[in-house]
Amino acid sequence: MRCSFVMNTLVKTGGAWLVSPSLAAVRRMSVPGFATSSSSSSVPNWEVGVSMVQGASRGIGFEFVRQLLENNTKGHVVATCRNPKEATSLINLKNSFSERLFIQKLDVTDETTIEESAESVRERYGSLNLLINATGILSIPGVLQPETTLNKVEKSSLMLAYEVNAVGPILVMKHMWPLLKAGGGNGTERAVAVVANLSARVGSIGDNKLGGWHSYRASKTALNQLTKNVSVELGRRKDPVVCILLHPGTVDTDLSRPFQRNVPEGKLFTKEYSVQKLLHIINNAKKQDNGKFFAWDGQEIPW
Amino acid sequence: MRCSFVMNTLVKTGGAWLVSPSLAAVRRMSVPGFATSSSSSSVPNWEVGVSMVQGASRGIGFEFVRQLLENNTKGHVVATCRNPKEATSLINLKNSFSERLFIQKLDVTDETTIEESAESVRERYGSLNLLINATGILSIPGVLQPETTLNKVEKSSLMLAYEVNAVGPILVMKHMWPLLKAGGGNGTERAVAVVANLSARVGSIGDNKLGGWHSYRASKTALNQLTKNVSVELGRRKDPVVCILLHPGTVDTDLSRPFQRNVPEGKLFTKEYSVQKLLHIINNAKKQDNGKFFAWDGQEIPW
Repeated sequence: MRCSFVMNTLVKTGGAWLVSPSLAAVRRMSVPGFATSSSSSSVPNWEVGVSMVQGASRGIGFEFVRQLLENNTKGHVVATCRNPKEATSLINLKNSFSERLFIQKLDVTDETTIEESAESVRERYGSLNLLINATGILSIPGVLQPETTLNKVEKSSLMLAYEVNAVGPILVMKHMWPLLKAGGGNGTERAVAVVANLSARVGSIGDNKLGGWHSYRASKTALNQLTKNVSVELGRRKDPVVCILLHPGTVDTDLSRPFQRNVPEGKLFTKEYSVQKLLHIINNAKKQDNGKFFAWDGQEIPW
Repeated sequence: MRCSFVMNTLVKTGGAWLVSPSLAAVRRMSVPGFATSSSSSSVPNWEVGVSMVQGASRGIGFEFVRQLLENNTKGHVVATCRNPKEATSLINLKNSFSERLFIQKLDVTDETTIEESAESVRERYGSLNLLINATGILSIPGVLQPETTLNKVEKSSLMLAYEVNAVGPILVMKHMWPLLKAGGGNGTERAVAVVANLSARVGSIGDNKLGGWHSYRASKTALNQLTKNVSVELGRRKDPVVCILLHPGTVDTDLSRPFQRNVPEGKLFTKEYSVQKLLHIINNAKKQDNGKFFAWDGQEIPW
């Protein structure tokens, strides 16, 4: 029996999986979707792969989870959010996909929860094939307001946007790294694991013609640099992982709602449409895409 | 007498200078270098101008102060640093340039000291023609170490580098803005006031081929975006101020000392040489340079 062979191999090779072998192997045997690969029996191989969507309780993040689950009958999804008990949409989705959806508490401003999430995924799956960092803040009434002029720039807003939009994703990448390296493209149609960080066109310096939104812009620009920076290290190590940055367009979500007034007709996308386009980019990601910044339509955006 | 006319004008026009008129005017009369302009008698006009160098106690910042004072016999310089009492080099320089050098306490992590500095310059000069943001941190033993790999990235380092290298300069710009608008190019050979923010080539995303130094790189990239962002607002308002970003090259200072081993021969500049080149760029800055990122040799650097 293949699975018992895998389990034995794991026990023998010890920490190679970065996973408690017996527990993980037992779980794999009881969870549909786990398959062994004849070419590499010591590497986790989940049919259609294991994806993590960080920031999944609503908006674009939630839509990624929904489409990842509905687009096939086998892939597993780890959906993270700050308050799983209040994540009504995810809880409802869990009713339809109880075995393939795993909801995990993760707050990007609290690194302990990131480490705990990595440990939890390690125990449960042993690997990841896709990480989507979808959290992002633009405005919080009374706390963070997109700046219209230099006079309105506040230190607290700059620091908070940076912490959530730039520092959070890089810390998630740091802790999920061993899992992504273990997973690579196993079980998927890609040759590589993918890290897709949700950026925004307003994070482009070269494309900045309007000004304003200082805190949000600077945080997304920094995210672009941090992602590019990691992609350079990846490329040098020849890890089976690529990092890309994605601009989803202006999407009809809670984040964009207060700012939709000036969006030209036909340019306000539904979540469904935007995520469909972004998943197309992710599913077709190749090594040569490592470190690139794509808009929803596949066009590269200048830095 | 010209000066008394200016004083009277000031009293009549009230807050137009953003300065306590009588005190500032009296000081101007007693400080060498103040001249009135026939074309604009209600605007402060310091012969050769008033420059502020933020982060001036050592390194490139100090060298800017020294050259700004030595290059002519009239320009005034406000040199800011965290601990004026311990700024030995500045104190020594003050012995030679007692009337033209004003040392001011300013800590970019404490916005109160930035506001107090603006108030102090307002009282003393009424305007600024040049602001150089020269502070920057790369490594602090035991606190901040440039990262060689993703595994070594720490939240505290990311946040600290951002606070000092990106947030600090934008807050200084915010509070010095009215003074720069009041000053424009008056008294200088330029048509505009200049904000020159010291960035670094490693802040370029497009030019990032080595990776590493995550905290420093991201903070400088964010500074680039914030400076570009302000330049867009400036351009729209038609303020007589331009913002530029400068890469000084690898300069033999305390900041670069631990990392000089791999610098190619002939590429480690003295402070004197680098600042001479950067002052050439600053002194020749024109409206069309607003929002650009220049290396020491005048070449533009990609974002």
